[in-house]
Amino acid sequence: MRLREATVAISGLGLMGGSLALALRGKCQTLVGIARRPELCEQATREGVVDRATCDLTLAAAHADIVVLATPVLHIVECIPHVVLAMRPGALLIDLGSTKRDIVAAMNGIPEGVLAVAGHPMCGKETGGLESADPAMFKGARFVLTPTERTTDEALVLAFELVEAVGACPLVLDAERHDRAVAVISHLPYLLASSLVHAEEEAGEDSVVSALAASGFRDTTRLAASQVEMMLQVLQTNREAIESALDLFERNIAKARDLLNNPTALELWMEQARDRRRGMFK
Amino acid sequence: MRLREATVAISGLGLMGGSLALALRGKCQTLVGIARRPELCEQATREGVVDRATCDLTLAAAHADIVVLATPVLHIVECIPHVVLAMRPGALLIDLGSTKRDIVAAMNGIPEGVLAVAGHPMCGKETGGLESADPAMFKGARFVLTPTERTTDEALVLAFELVEAVGACPLVLDAERHDRAVAVISHLPYLLASSLVHAEEEAGEDSVVSALAASGFRDTTRLAASQVEMMLQVLQTNREAIESALDLFERNIAKARDLLNNPTALELWMEQARDRRRGMFK
Repeated sequence: MRLREATVAISGLGLMGGSLALALRGKCQTLVGIARRPELCEQATREGVVDRATCDLTLAAAHADIVVLATPVLHIVECIPHVVLAMRPGALLIDLGSTKRDIVAAMNGIPEGVLAVAGHPMCGKETGGLESADPAMFKGARFVLTPTERTTDEALVLAFELVEAVGACPLVLDAERHDRAVAVISHLPYLLASSLVHAEEEAGEDSVVSALAASGFRDTTRLAASQVEMMLQVLQTNREAIESALDLFERNIAKARDLLNNPTALELWMEQARDRRRGMFK
Repeated sequence: MRLREATVAISGLGLMGGSLALALRGKCQTLVGIARRPELCEQATREGVVDRATCDLTLAAAHADIVVLATPVLHIVECIPHVVLAMRPGALLIDLGSTKRDIVAAMNGIPEGVLAVAGHPMCGKETGGLESADPAMFKGARFVLTPTERTTDEALVLAFELVEAVGACPLVLDAERHDRAVAVISHLPYLLASSLVHAEEEAGEDSVVSALAASGFRDTTRLAASQVEMMLQVLQTNREAIESALDLFERNIAKARDLLNNPTALELWMEQARDRRRGMFK
């Protein structure tokens, strides 16, 4: 099976599912959207995001060569045992969930015959919904692929093809390493941003604080505006790794506080952070 | 004295001083730049950033109606007692320093005759130097003006005129409130960003962590790339307020950690942060 001959069914037509559909247009045989709300199905079809859309995941899965689950993590985990019962033998199940451990466990538990690869494109925006969908969102982004016990070479090749079709760069990674990494580079920054907004609110009782907030505060807190439903399920499914990331961060911020008394050592610490940050993003 | 008749001397032709010069072009009689390095003086004149430039602050100050100090905070503090000796009676001294307490104290100590208003435009970038200067940087930004014992009505009116000439929005604020506010909305975010970069480095020994860092991490850590010389002097001159801001933040991140065990309360906390952040920046 090649992507261009495939019927691709995407469950969830929000930011991720909608963007994937837009990015796949013209690159597969047929695009089918699945959404809970009939209005959203109607909108996605009318706007040409998908060729057709339905509220019936089972029906769509029964006729698909590739089923993509693009809903929040806990919903994906719940969905997997049901959707695979409807899928054809040899069809591929893939997801776009933000944490991988629970999803890979669910995929390992499905009957043989259906293929499954877990996935996580490392891109997003703080706004959600089909309105925010953007086919260019995947361009140049890393797209993690996590093999499961239902991943064959054929499945991985098809998943690679899908990743490359949307302009992303595939990176094969096991669930544990993925979840530890995103705890540090995504979930921890989200908690810092939200804690900073709460701290600013407590400090800002005279409103001057908020009035002075400029681009530095805006960027540092951007993740606090993320979609709560999505992020809550992320935090719930990656707690141990997040707690370790918090430990690591708290040691570093405690060090920063100590260094306020030692300008020479503080300067070195600041230079190290500056050089590393400038090296990461040009 | 009105701005359009004034000779304005700007000491420091980096990001802030250079941007101010560019934004003031055509809005005052003469623009004089002062820089330590002769090459920078030559560059600023050649590129038309200023009408003329010199390494001699005293000489430039002696012929100026407005002297703007646009160097790092500690340098401004050191500079004030010397530069005022050269200034003409009735001339205005203003600064663009990031903390105000020590600068206002220095301005309070100058001989009568010279006028002085402390200032802080709430804008910037993480890159520095004349290369990064941008006349549009002040557009729509808050520009704090802090009265000193050498601030007359005439001085404040002229300072307002300068602020408005560069497209910024003046906000009169005493030094203590200013410094407490910027500790929360600027210096604390800088320390969080730098601590996060250090935490990521410690976590990222297998390099996968860095490979996955995407736009969320990029924005949350942007301030860590700030100019170290400038920020070090900021941290040194606002330590008490920064320590209080750290206390406030640490209470909130500790609360976030506790809430990981309580999804219902966590959801509410996340929604509060989301709503406040979305309300602050549209």
